[in-house]
Amino acid sequence: MAAFAAHTSATSSHYSPPGTAILLRSRRRAFATRVSCSAAAAAGNKTVVIGVAADSGCGKSTFMRRLTSVLGGGAEPPRGGNPESNTLVGDTATVVCLDDYHSLDRAARKARGLTALDPRANDFDLMYEQVRAIKDGRAVDKPVYNHVTGLLDPPERVAPPRILLLEGLHPMYDERVRGLLDFSIYLDISDEVKFAWKIQRDLAERGHSLESIKAIIEARKPDFDAYIDPQKQYADAVIEVLPTQLIPGDDDGKVPRVRLIMKEGVKHFAPVYLFDEGSTISWIPCGRKLSCSYPGIKFAYGFGAYFGHEVSVLEMDGRFDKLDELIYVETHLSNLSTKFYGEVAQQMLTHADLPGSNNGTGLFQTIVGLKIRELCEQIVAERDAMTADAVKV
Amino acid sequence: MAAFAAHTSATSSHYSPPGTAILLRSRRRAFATRVSCSAAAAAGNKTVVIGVAADSGCGKSTFMRRLTSVLGGGAEPPRGGNPESNTLVGDTATVVCLDDYHSLDRAARKARGLTALDPRANDFDLMYEQVRAIKDGRAVDKPVYNHVTGLLDPPERVAPPRILLLEGLHPMYDERVRGLLDFSIYLDISDEVKFAWKIQRDLAERGHSLESIKAIIEARKPDFDAYIDPQKQYADAVIEVLPTQLIPGDDDGKVPRVRLIMKEGVKHFAPVYLFDEGSTISWIPCGRKLSCSYPGIKFAYGFGAYFGHEVSVLEMDGRFDKLDELIYVETHLSNLSTKFYGEVAQQMLTHADLPGSNNGTGLFQTIVGLKIRELCEQIVAERDAMTADAVKV
Repeated sequence: MAAFAAHTSATSSHYSPPGTAILLRSRRRAFATRVSCSAAAAAGNKTVVIGVAADSGCGKSTFMRRLTSVLGGGAEPPRGGNPESNTLVGDTATVVCLDDYHSLDRAARKARGLTALDPRANDFDLMYEQVRAIKDGRAVDKPVYNHVTGLLDPPERVAPPRILLLEGLHPMYDERVRGLLDFSIYLDISDEVKFAWKIQRDLAERGHSLESIKAIIEARKPDFDAYIDPQKQYADAVIEVLPTQLIPGDDDGKVPRVRLIMKEGVKHFAPVYLFDEGSTISWIPCGRKLSCSYPGIKFAYGFGAYFGHEVSVLEMDGRFDKLDELIYVETHLSNLSTKFYGEVAQQMLTHADLPGSNNGTGLFQTIVGLKIRELCEQIVAERDAMTADAVKV
Repeated sequence: MAAFAAHTSATSSHYSPPGTAILLRSRRRAFATRVSCSAAAAAGNKTVVIGVAADSGCGKSTFMRRLTSVLGGGAEPPRGGNPESNTLVGDTATVVCLDDYHSLDRAARKARGLTALDPRANDFDLMYEQVRAIKDGRAVDKPVYNHVTGLLDPPERVAPPRILLLEGLHPMYDERVRGLLDFSIYLDISDEVKFAWKIQRDLAERGHSLESIKAIIEARKPDFDAYIDPQKQYADAVIEVLPTQLIPGDDDGKVPRVRLIMKEGVKHFAPVYLFDEGSTISWIPCGRKLSCSYPGIKFAYGFGAYFGHEVSVLEMDGRFDKLDELIYVETHLSNLSTKFYGEVAQQMLTHADLPGSNNGTGLFQTIVGLKIRELCEQIVAERDAMTADAVKV
């Protein structure tokens, strides 16, 4: 429960009482403009570690492309290495896929009747040691799980980056690994949407039958519920994808209702809000100034409790059809951590080809990217300030 | 249909297409700061005429007190005149009660089986002549209907004021009178609330029985539906009072849900809005920053059609319990036409003893007062500008 404790302590020491929120936030922004994350390595700072948890087929790789794009510095497979490497390396961020910590290969899992979701098929001791080493500034030789062959390939070297993005099934499962995360995100896709997405992909592309898709999902469900889903209680931000409420009875997943659940009191993380922070709002931007096609766009904002934590929740139901809709919405959201007017829209346009670029999944993934960028810059600035103080003493 | 035509022509010439609304509005504000309504008489300007329609017992006299307070200059019964005069005279505004144009006294109405709501019991020719005379700058000898005796008393002199408030059953009934109105308001109290209010007043204060109250309301209903209610289609602003939706099954009228329906495209009248003009919003301000007691406060804002006219609608359900709630709400409304921060709250506090000071009726009556003040100032400024142009030529 180390990470949990770390988060609750952050909650109590950094919670803004009513009235002081704006002051605290502007102070944070002052930090943000002083230093960029790319400058962190030169100053000898340690790696910022971000965990992103989700089931497979839930859009983690899309999310990673959006995150690395916002963070800057590119993200490519390591040059001259294993062509089946799951790692992406850039000037700012490195993405490590936690499937690489599978302790059992496909054949061994099959022989023992275990899924990849089962902790017994994963090596958390090694995961912890290596994440810790990277955070301490040391390169590691990380195993490589080959998704094509299902075998464990020879390890590859991972150097400490400015930001380490740990994406996979279990970034928050092990309490020691969890304790190393500076920020954590959980992608929570509802069963209805997961099913609709799988059908879209597997029926069309892989020739599966509807029955076999259902069977695959059902077979995974017990382990998913036991080992993956419970991690969301530790997440600082959760992106929930649900069926739309704009079209009665709609369940093809093409129009999603997406909720961004943001934990309050997390250091360096000021939740995004709509119009009036801390109140409850619903907003249909489509009207006199903005015309939208059917079924329109609906936003909601509010607050509540999520696994006992105080949270703010921003929700988008519907799809963007035109660029003006996206810009109009961006203009009315606050605390976005953008560096210039229209940065969210620009990011979404840059990745217009990625799934979710016209709805809340793309919007909220982009926003989370901006929040992580700011968080990283603030952590670096804070360390710089402490280093400067230490030098003075 | 003169007034109607006048309003629709204002609609077409002053309707702001999307994108230009803010520009037009700020231009209007520039007018408003140049001249005050109290200065109008000195410049020889004509009277601005405002019509306020509602059934009796619907809070017209409360509304008049709020309006004259916002307009300034006091409002007292004429000195040394008929002690039963229905008129209020102040430095800025004069309130005339249209009951004074009853053509039949109580006995005559009874003899002919007519209610005061029936146009045949009212002299619209005289009403038109006298309102027109006042608007042209001439004093009139207006009849006085004595509510105590039910008789028509000798007339009283009414001098042309800066603003003439015509309150009563039929300010928009006669097309000629309607054509003289610079702005018109309809107080629309739903049957449930009207009944609850009558019970509160008549059961407690006048010793009526529940049955007799029901009978009185039922007896008035056909004439009300035929002659009073249809006037709301001509109103530039309608204040609707409905039962709350915050307490299921509540119908005692103590917590009202009040809607301010504002016609679009009316010259010198920029509808109030919440957060984002021209969109659809619901807002519960009670939350992290503002605590409210049960059943809380809920606002809604949107647009639509009202008798074929484009309108904006602002709705408040619930009651203010504390001053901070009122100020918090005021801070988040736009286009209020206040002259200083907190003017709405100050007005509501000044009249804390009046019915509705803790809910949407008081809030929206106060806001309508501010809008009328601005409208009057803009009409005067416009006339001044035209006079100045004429002098140059």
